[in-house]
Amino acid sequence: MNFMDKIYQIYLGGEFRKTDDLLRVYNPYNNEELATTYKAGKPELEEAIIKALSVKETLIDLPSGKKYGILMQIASQMNESIQDLARIITAESGKPIRYALGEVDRAIQTFTIAAEESKRLPGEYIDIEWTAAGEGKEAIVRYFPVGLVAGISPFNFPLNLAVHKLAPAIAAGCPIILKPSSSTPLSTLRLAQIIDNTELPKGAVSILPMSRETGNSMVTDERFGLLTFTGSPVVGWKMKSQAGKKKVALELGGNAGVIVSEIADLDKAVKKCITGSFAYSGQVCIHTQRIYVQEKIFDEFTRKFIAAVKTLKKGDPMEEHTDISSMIDDANAERVENWVKEALESGAELLCGGNRNGSYYEPTVLTNTASSMKVCGLEIFGPVVTIEKYTDFKDALEKINDSRYGLQAGVFTNEISQMNDAFRHLEVGGIMINDIPGFRVDHMPYGGVKDSGLGREGVKYSIHDMLEPRLLVKDK
Amino acid sequence: MNFMDKIYQIYLGGEFRKTDDLLRVYNPYNNEELATTYKAGKPELEEAIIKALSVKETLIDLPSGKKYGILMQIASQMNESIQDLARIITAESGKPIRYALGEVDRAIQTFTIAAEESKRLPGEYIDIEWTAAGEGKEAIVRYFPVGLVAGISPFNFPLNLAVHKLAPAIAAGCPIILKPSSSTPLSTLRLAQIIDNTELPKGAVSILPMSRETGNSMVTDERFGLLTFTGSPVVGWKMKSQAGKKKVALELGGNAGVIVSEIADLDKAVKKCITGSFAYSGQVCIHTQRIYVQEKIFDEFTRKFIAAVKTLKKGDPMEEHTDISSMIDDANAERVENWVKEALESGAELLCGGNRNGSYYEPTVLTNTASSMKVCGLEIFGPVVTIEKYTDFKDALEKINDSRYGLQAGVFTNEISQMNDAFRHLEVGGIMINDIPGFRVDHMPYGGVKDSGLGREGVKYSIHDMLEPRLLVKDK
Amino acid sequence: MNFMDKIYQIYLGGEFRKTDDLLRVYNPYNNEELATTYKAGKPELEEAIIKALSVKETLIDLPSGKKYGILMQIASQMNESIQDLARIITAESGKPIRYALGEVDRAIQTFTIAAEESKRLPGEYIDIEWTAAGEGKEAIVRYFPVGLVAGISPFNFPLNLAVHKLAPAIAAGCPIILKPSSSTPLSTLRLAQIIDNTELPKGAVSILPMSRETGNSMVTDERFGLLTFTGSPVVGWKMKSQAGKKKVALELGGNAGVIVSEIADLDKAVKKCITGSFAYSGQVCIHTQRIYVQEKIFDEFTRKFIAAVKTLKKGDPMEEHTDISSMIDDANAERVENWVKEALESGAELLCGGNRNGSYYEPTVLTNTASSMKVCGLEIFGPVVTIEKYTDFKDALEKINDSRYGLQAGVFTNEISQMNDAFRHLEVGGIMINDIPGFRVDHMPYGGVKDSGLGREGVKYSIHDMLEPRLLVKDK
Amino acid sequence: MNFMDKIYQIYLGGEFRKTDDLLRVYNPYNNEELATTYKAGKPELEEAIIKALSVKETLIDLPSGKKYGILMQIASQMNESIQDLARIITAESGKPIRYALGEVDRAIQTFTIAAEESKRLPGEYIDIEWTAAGEGKEAIVRYFPVGLVAGISPFNFPLNLAVHKLAPAIAAGCPIILKPSSSTPLSTLRLAQIIDNTELPKGAVSILPMSRETGNSMVTDERFGLLTFTGSPVVGWKMKSQAGKKKVALELGGNAGVIVSEIADLDKAVKKCITGSFAYSGQVCIHTQRIYVQEKIFDEFTRKFIAAVKTLKKGDPMEEHTDISSMIDDANAERVENWVKEALESGAELLCGGNRNGSYYEPTVLTNTASSMKVCGLEIFGPVVTIEKYTDFKDALEKINDSRYGLQAGVFTNEISQMNDAFRHLEVGGIMINDIPGFRVDHMPYGGVKDSGLGREGVKYSIHDMLEPRLLVKDK
Repeated sequence: MNFMDKIYQIYLGGEFRKTDDLLRVYNPYNNEELATTYKAGKPELEEAIIKALSVKETLIDLPSGKKYGILMQIASQMNESIQDLARIITAESGKPIRYALGEVDRAIQTFTIAAEESKRLPGEYIDIEWTAAGEGKEAIVRYFPVGLVAGISPFNFPLNLAVHKLAPAIAAGCPIILKPSSSTPLSTLRLAQIIDNTELPKGAVSILPMSRETGNSMVTDERFGLLTFTGSPVVGWKMKSQAGKKKVALELGGNAGVIVSEIADLDKAVKKCITGSFAYSGQVCIHTQRIYVQEKIFDEFTRKFIAAVKTLKKGDPMEEHTDISSMIDDANAERVENWVKEALESGAELLCGGNRNGSYYEPTVLTNTASSMKVCGLEIFGPVVTIEKYTDFKDALEKINDSRYGLQAGVFTNEISQMNDAFRHLEVGGIMINDIPGFRVDHMPYGGVKDSGLGREGVKYSIHDMLEPRLLVKDK
Repeated sequence: MNFMDKIYQIYLGGEFRKTDDLLRVYNPYNNEELATTYKAGKPELEEAIIKALSVKETLIDLPSGKKYGILMQIASQMNESIQDLARIITAESGKPIRYALGEVDRAIQTFTIAAEESKRLPGEYIDIEWTAAGEGKEAIVRYFPVGLVAGISPFNFPLNLAVHKLAPAIAAGCPIILKPSSSTPLSTLRLAQIIDNTELPKGAVSILPMSRETGNSMVTDERFGLLTFTGSPVVGWKMKSQAGKKKVALELGGNAGVIVSEIADLDKAVKKCITGSFAYSGQVCIHTQRIYVQEKIFDEFTRKFIAAVKTLKKGDPMEEHTDISSMIDDANAERVENWVKEALESGAELLCGGNRNGSYYEPTVLTNTASSMKVCGLEIFGPVVTIEKYTDFKDALEKINDSRYGLQAGVFTNEISQMNDAFRHLEVGGIMINDIPGFRVDHMPYGGVKDSGLGREGVKYSIHDMLEPRLLVKDK
Repeated sequence: MNFMDKIYQIYLGGEFRKTDDLLRVYNPYNNEELATTYKAGKPELEEAIIKALSVKETLIDLPSGKKYGILMQIASQMNESIQDLARIITAESGKPIRYALGEVDRAIQTFTIAAEESKRLPGEYIDIEWTAAGEGKEAIVRYFPVGLVAGISPFNFPLNLAVHKLAPAIAAGCPIILKPSSSTPLSTLRLAQIIDNTELPKGAVSILPMSRETGNSMVTDERFGLLTFTGSPVVGWKMKSQAGKKKVALELGGNAGVIVSEIADLDKAVKKCITGSFAYSGQVCIHTQRIYVQEKIFDEFTRKFIAAVKTLKKGDPMEEHTDISSMIDDANAERVENWVKEALESGAELLCGGNRNGSYYEPTVLTNTASSMKVCGLEIFGPVVTIEKYTDFKDALEKINDSRYGLQAGVFTNEISQMNDAFRHLEVGGIMINDIPGFRVDHMPYGGVKDSGLGREGVKYSIHDMLEPRLLVKDK
Repeated sequence: MNFMDKIYQIYLGGEFRKTDDLLRVYNPYNNEELATTYKAGKPELEEAIIKALSVKETLIDLPSGKKYGILMQIASQMNESIQDLARIITAESGKPIRYALGEVDRAIQTFTIAAEESKRLPGEYIDIEWTAAGEGKEAIVRYFPVGLVAGISPFNFPLNLAVHKLAPAIAAGCPIILKPSSSTPLSTLRLAQIIDNTELPKGAVSILPMSRETGNSMVTDERFGLLTFTGSPVVGWKMKSQAGKKKVALELGGNAGVIVSEIADLDKAVKKCITGSFAYSGQVCIHTQRIYVQEKIFDEFTRKFIAAVKTLKKGDPMEEHTDISSMIDDANAERVENWVKEALESGAELLCGGNRNGSYYEPTVLTNTASSMKVCGLEIFGPVVTIEKYTDFKDALEKINDSRYGLQAGVFTNEISQMNDAFRHLEVGGIMINDIPGFRVDHMPYGGVKDSGLGREGVKYSIHDMLEPRLLVKDK
């Protein structure tokens, strides 16, 4: 399979397969049919589960050096197919090729880190002699795979967010069944081919596009040990309540905010916020949705920001210089259009943008917004940002916190005390000093508080979620 | 308040209070009314929640040295009240005083460990320069309290299992509302008095006996950040599905097993298994319920075991030399009686015991049982143990695993390879070589897999559950 | 023994003893004879070594809970004798009682931390399966005591700097022979009494005043596993070359510097620098010897600083309100006097102070100094500080680094970038933002680079120096 | 340069160079001149030091991702030159090609681990609020390179033991000057070429054959921050006393022992001991020099062992099937011959071997030896092993400990209690259960106690030796 292929078979328990349920994948930029693949139904899912369970013991006993070898081989093969993988991502998701190449690079990095971490699974030596009851004893803790993993990944980083489930599972020694987004299943199926070329025991990984209903049966099935979901808050939290006895990890969305203080490097702040606001049309969990600028520099910031918006290159996502292109589909673009309209009707002011053309929505900047407006309070997942002024730094922190979400935040400042206040008071998973909330490297702990999620990804952290400690107490 | 008191007020947000809902506590040994306390209703619970939330920020900023001081002061005051606390436990639970004294000792240890760990909350320094995207940056992770904790604790270790929720919460900086068992609320209310004597901000701890219904409203209330429950599997797993967005930790039961291999120290194995089987009438989560003995030594083991059973002193739990006394109530003793009868009717053989007298049930040993019998397959939580023979060590491991539960297991052996096989293959949270599954020291990770629970207690591990990481990425 | 005692026996292998070699201890404030103790000669040292080696195996097997109990008991007994211990320190060292009380508090803290750390000795679980050669194997590392420790401690913190050797040794399970300063042996001998009251095996600790020559035989004796020395650089580095096969840890001196940037909180900086410069007449390893102030605030800083110097209360160190009193002896006061004179003759300007009266030397402030002057370039160990201006922050960093020493440094600033530059570029063991170099808490890693030392104290770090890893590789 | 080359230039500060001091390298198997290289004199060493110091700051700032890239590139290039590197090793050292290939594999592994560890340098977050003095503060510790490293490596693993100094230095960010053995400098010079092909700043690595005298000037030169030496005990310990202020790590030799208990897998023990005793003619630091066999199986073990010795293939080390070949030079073979003779004269019994032919010495087995004989008490570094019987396991442990050395030991047993006793009582750096003392994987902590060394290698541990902690205390 490569970018030119028109048919992608699904990857079921170590075999590439067709099913009766055709899934057509379209290019969001031109609405042309890109390729055809298949949906797994319940029988195929059942088969994948059986195969996964049958290799469980084999995976437990796979020496770490072997896991390392497999994961590095995947990284190496991906490295040889960077262009191909990136073009598939761009074609299925409408993501500008520049960003798609970055995503493949990161996915390679994610596998590399997982390779390294597979040799560094936690293991503890515990002194048991703290009380008389334990005298003469010592203990060790080894971490065993938690069991079969159900992974569900979204369309916006179709490769790397799936890899953040696949690579840790291999490192931890867990079999995994991954449901990619039905809009963007091709890049992970291309990856399946790479995985299949390694010595990973067949059955350890299945990549199965599914209907939401079939996917839900993974959520409730007690044979899975962990559900790891990246997607929308509403869906994620509902899954948690249906998940039965299994562990649940949720990476959901947010309405991330940035503070630009008067002592920030203004040009740097503008440049970074432009990327944060409009990269991949804002279809990013940690998209910069709200910018709070200290009043002394508000006008200058806004002027420079709007000027920069106007230089963004719209166009075919396959073009190297394209900055912004279509959203994933018309429905989402329409939703964004409606939210902006609603905001304008409620008193918001449009600084630029605001128009839609099919699935393309212009980079849009609003001010005079209120936290009650959807453009502020909900996750917009589109190329829209609000800029508001603040007087006092502590107020700015409160504005960031005035949200049901708490994923990441950015603070542009050079004051130690502001950095400290932000760290102490911002109710988010991560704070980026002099950077945008969208900053992420693949080994850092990443995830949200409040409605934004449960647990942390970042390879090592995901691996730990996939492990169960087992204690051995023995005589010394 | 002390052992002689007849009225125990509940501890609500830093105040001792009465309510309209009287709760009479009886001594299970003589069925006399021991004392009167109160149930909190929903208004009292609401008040406790409000007070707890109001001190949340204060607790976040409490320096670790202060938390250490408070926790050590609690330990020290408990140390001065050991006899009193132990007698309360014995009176409310029927637990022989020898074991009750041990429980108070352990609760003191639990607070001491929490004191020490409060100064050692996790904190990480992270190199961010792994890729070009992160060059020039570094990160630190601080761990913040997860928010208000709902703790629900059982009757069998009325003090120490509650302390395993209270002490970590104070160490982590989380306010906590604890619901003790309605049968045994007195020892924790006595502890409340000790806690109240410290500088812990009022509201940080509430100890509220409640009806199950009121308790359930803690489970569903989204203002709690964590639910930590110790109790029965059925109740626990249901709570998980109702818990909404909060984190959930479950310490449930099991039907723990022991293997006695032919190269074990037989006398030691007998002695330890007697304790494991009958201490506190088997009303212990990690009670030794199933013993598998290698066939070569089966007869000798069984003979010595039965002989030892017969030396157990039955009597008033307040007597120093009493080994075994009443169960918590008649209903439970009847349940055990029925399960044993059912087993005998299905072909099991009674080696000793089998009689009930009110809430007292004799130490009972069965053989020729099957895993389908309740005495084997369910958690008996009574003074009953089964002894079966095995031929091959690997079969013995399989017998232990032939259970829906997986808490802890014991293996008596001196062979490295058997130890390794047990560690690799037993599907439990902890394996005790040359000891019973009931072995526990309070700082070790403790908890079950399969239906036996979710997560690990053991002070440090509970504290970690009560913390949420927050990342700060900054220029280097 | 207590403060009123006139005869202190030395502590040799678990016994209090006299020797033929009388050691008279004088009060530096009034030159009166304070008490009499004894020097150990080579025969007594030999006896102490033999006894120490004879308990080596017992200490290895002492369960951590027992070590914890012993160390906490010492802390608790010290707590009951705070006043007595502090008065002994003041009497033998001339240290104002306020600071002496602080020192005892810290010594109690040091024992408490050691107690906690004794339960947390390092221990590792290592995955051995990284390559085919290790498949099927795993390893654990336990840390064993390094052997007999030779500790040599100085006069300036006669109790706590000795405790930084004694407490870690007990925690690590190493026997130790401590040589306190011959000027100030009384507080450690008082401590010996406390230690002797515990269950620590006799012989594990000896506290022996000695001549330098006898002390040197500890340095060369191959039966010691570690030499840990706190004192002057010249002596320390010579010891390293004579130490044979044993490990060596050196905590030596420095000429610590402070930077006060224009964005600092000026009043806070003045106040802290006063303490840093003159506490215990500058007889502190991390005494603030050099202050670099940004030129814009130089005049204001200097004016306020000189004003504050003038408020320092000179007097009897036993008086609660005394800030500054005599130095340890006339010889040292004369040395300081000469260095200042020499500086003034070479062009330095005297801002205040400069006079000597016996062993008392006035708080003295100089400016217009050069790094070649002894008051700048060597460790003055007296109540003298230089204040110089700087223009550019990076120059200030270079001035701090323009020294053969590198212990700690202070930087008063609120700029993230200055903090980062200081961290990256200052060649010292520790940098204190908005504090003086003299900041130390007893669990932090403390020690110098360049000529200031080798290794780090801070309880956990000292313990690690006293341990030797031992690896066990076994089948999994 | 490759195996066919006849002239190897030395690697000085990023340049390949000739000097006036020719060094001829001979093949120990046939005494033919293999190639010519050069010795660095003091001027060349000085130049290398200057260049190394000039890149010190550049290396500190090298992002970890860059260091990872460089180290992985070295590993990858070595992988492409395995055959060539192995043949150079065999030619210069006489090591059978099979073992030489193993050594190259391990050296690649060493670089790979160093790459991974370069991203995982230690870094700590420290809670400073344990006491009132630290309230409001927190600290982080970053680890900085210790400075210029002097590495001295031996002939017996000419590549991998040098790599255990080079790879950690690059990972830690330290410049390094390596002195390879003058007998075997070619493989490291070949490696220099590979290193030179990377983006490692020139000057960071120099590889300079030197006279012992010139090498000694590295030992005493205060511009080096660390001396890391692998070689003979006499030389190593002397260096420690001459090393001035720098840190010192010593990997020296031993006379490693094995215990074979009556419950061991005898055939496995024989097979492993054969390798341990005769691989590379015993010229291995952890060569199996002493075997203690339980008396019940002594005869059987010895019979099988002697039979196995006789199957060892002697021959040209370049032949794939050669097991044993020449020693490094005649002088060493003669020394071994003399030691064996001396043992026989003192009552030892020869079980096989005992003859010398030039630099070839036969695999030799002795019994009835005494610890006072050189073949037992000193490091023989030749193909000689002693086999003695023991009755009681504890006696066997004492026999192992009856040595001035303590590197590693092997214990063949299946009893938990014997494993525990060995771990507790053997005074060595590492104990291998069911394996020989020669077991080593490159990431495990490796090193000796007693006269066998100071510190531990094993990539992570060596890196830590090359780092200096620096503390930053700041407001929270």
